[in-house]
Amino acid sequence: MTISLQSAQIIINTALAKGREMGLKPLSAVVLDGGGHVQAFAREDGAAPGRFAIAHGKAYGAVMLGMAGTAQMARAEAQAYFMAAVNGVYGGQVIPVPGGVLLRNDSGAVIGAVGVTGDTSDNDAIAAMAGIEAAGLIGEI
Amino acid sequence: MTISLQSAQIIINTALAKGREMGLKPLSAVVLDGGGHVQAFAREDGAAPGRFAIAHGKAYGAVMLGMAGTAQMARAEAQAYFMAAVNGVYGGQVIPVPGGVLLRNDSGAVIGAVGVTGDTSDNDAIAAMAGIEAAGLIGEI
Amino acid sequence: MTISLQSAQIIINTALAKGREMGLKPLSAVVLDGGGHVQAFAREDGAAPGRFAIAHGKAYGAVMLGMAGTAQMARAEAQAYFMAAVNGVYGGQVIPVPGGVLLRNDSGAVIGAVGVTGDTSDNDAIAAMAGIEAAGLIGEI
Amino acid sequence: MTISLQSAQIIINTALAKGREMGLKPLSAVVLDGGGHVQAFAREDGAAPGRFAIAHGKAYGAVMLGMAGTAQMARAEAQAYFMAAVNGVYGGQVIPVPGGVLLRNDSGAVIGAVGVTGDTSDNDAIAAMAGIEAAGLIGEI
Repeated sequence: MTISLQSAQIIINTALAKGREMGLKPLSAVVLDGGGHVQAFAREDGAAPGRFAIAHGKAYGAVMLGMAGTAQMARAEAQAYFMAAVNGVYGGQVIPVPGGVLLRNDSGAVIGAVGVTGDTSDNDAIAAMAGIEAAGLIGEI
Repeated sequence: MTISLQSAQIIINTALAKGREMGLKPLSAVVLDGGGHVQAFAREDGAAPGRFAIAHGKAYGAVMLGMAGTAQMARAEAQAYFMAAVNGVYGGQVIPVPGGVLLRNDSGAVIGAVGVTGDTSDNDAIAAMAGIEAAGLIGEI
Repeated sequence: MTISLQSAQIIINTALAKGREMGLKPLSAVVLDGGGHVQAFAREDGAAPGRFAIAHGKAYGAVMLGMAGTAQMARAEAQAYFMAAVNGVYGGQVIPVPGGVLLRNDSGAVIGAVGVTGDTSDNDAIAAMAGIEAAGLIGEI
Repeated sequence: MTISLQSAQIIINTALAKGREMGLKPLSAVVLDGGGHVQAFAREDGAAPGRFAIAHGKAYGAVMLGMAGTAQMARAEAQAYFMAAVNGVYGGQVIPVPGGVLLRNDSGAVIGAVGVTGDTSDNDAIAAMAGIEAAGLIGEI
């Protein structure tokens, strides 16, 4: 099971709308499938040009490790050299902070991840969760 | 001047719809801004997982060189080692075939590019142009 | 839908056995899932040390492009610079020759790929197909 | 002297079975030869897609440095910049934590390494050792 493009676009559009509603800085959001491949992405007007790579890095680490952003950050705080090494084997593509949210199906299997960036990591995660709920999916922050 | 997210989403959604209307294989489409940075992307259900990189490569080369996909392909046919060398300096991110379409403003300045992939290069370019016209912009194939 | 480890091991063990039965050089075989990630691999005693990367490259390109080895080779013969550029965006991980076999489910969706290397490309593909048939799956050479 | 494919498969299958017996998260296991090249690998159903790279990184550092995971971790704790620099020269392929187990022959020479990942680093190492013992080999955690 994977995420349809329609679901991905609901997640992204709702996350960006949530950011505007909360008065956050302009957000960018990506949805990856269960193999870590980009399904859809959008960058709000006014967001910095490099935001794709940050959003992607949050979601990519979540899928590849099967570990959401909060757990990755805890590991990075406890064992910085481990997350640095993980980044080595994944080509430097992992951003281990909140805003990388795992998507699970009803039986708990990982079916993808959402990455949101632009404001604080915690606000990014709130916006991601708004999108995930709008799509009727289960997110793990 | 750059492309708004709204325009980028019109381009992408219209390009994908055009592909369905023409009975093409599932398409993927990206819009890059005038600095070659990702603004928005969507991958149709059923498209191969690696399509982001191909769509991106078509659009990225167009922006970075200021040369659309058709002109890049002509150069690759005439001088393969030149395009290989270009890929060296751009980190291997250029796909020099049609489906990479330059976006210009009224005065002819490049404001971004669209990359479409999934069917033949020529059909990819037709779908990209449908999206660009729907957004009221000028494309160079 | 993806491939179970049990199916992957049947594919690999049968492919290697087929190679011994046919008197081929020592084979190596990999099975990737639908996202291009390694599920299982084995390298026959006597095979050269670098065979993982070749087996992987045959299967990886197949999954990422949704195009089996034979079709990739045809494209490389017709447009060498295109497959070279594809390799750029995929980090140089694509080996575009037979022996990279797509795995499809009953409805035709790609669920992974098998990569076999060690003998001629055509013999590699025969060994891969023997494994795929033993696992009751459908292969596209 | 190196490890036969048969021994490698005993190691991997036993390590994965040990993980199931202990109730661990789904494990992945790799066996590298004395040159650091992949001999065999398996990823349990339900393991995250990126587990090959982590298992490989644990075993690769062990072979290349002739230093098992526990010793690598001690060095990383004491001198993080040293292991970061080691990763630079080895292309970012080293994961310096337990679960990377050196394989030695009767005279103490390194003949390869096993890398296991999926649960805690200590549990990963226990599963690896179960496999190595089943194959009648000597492991250094």
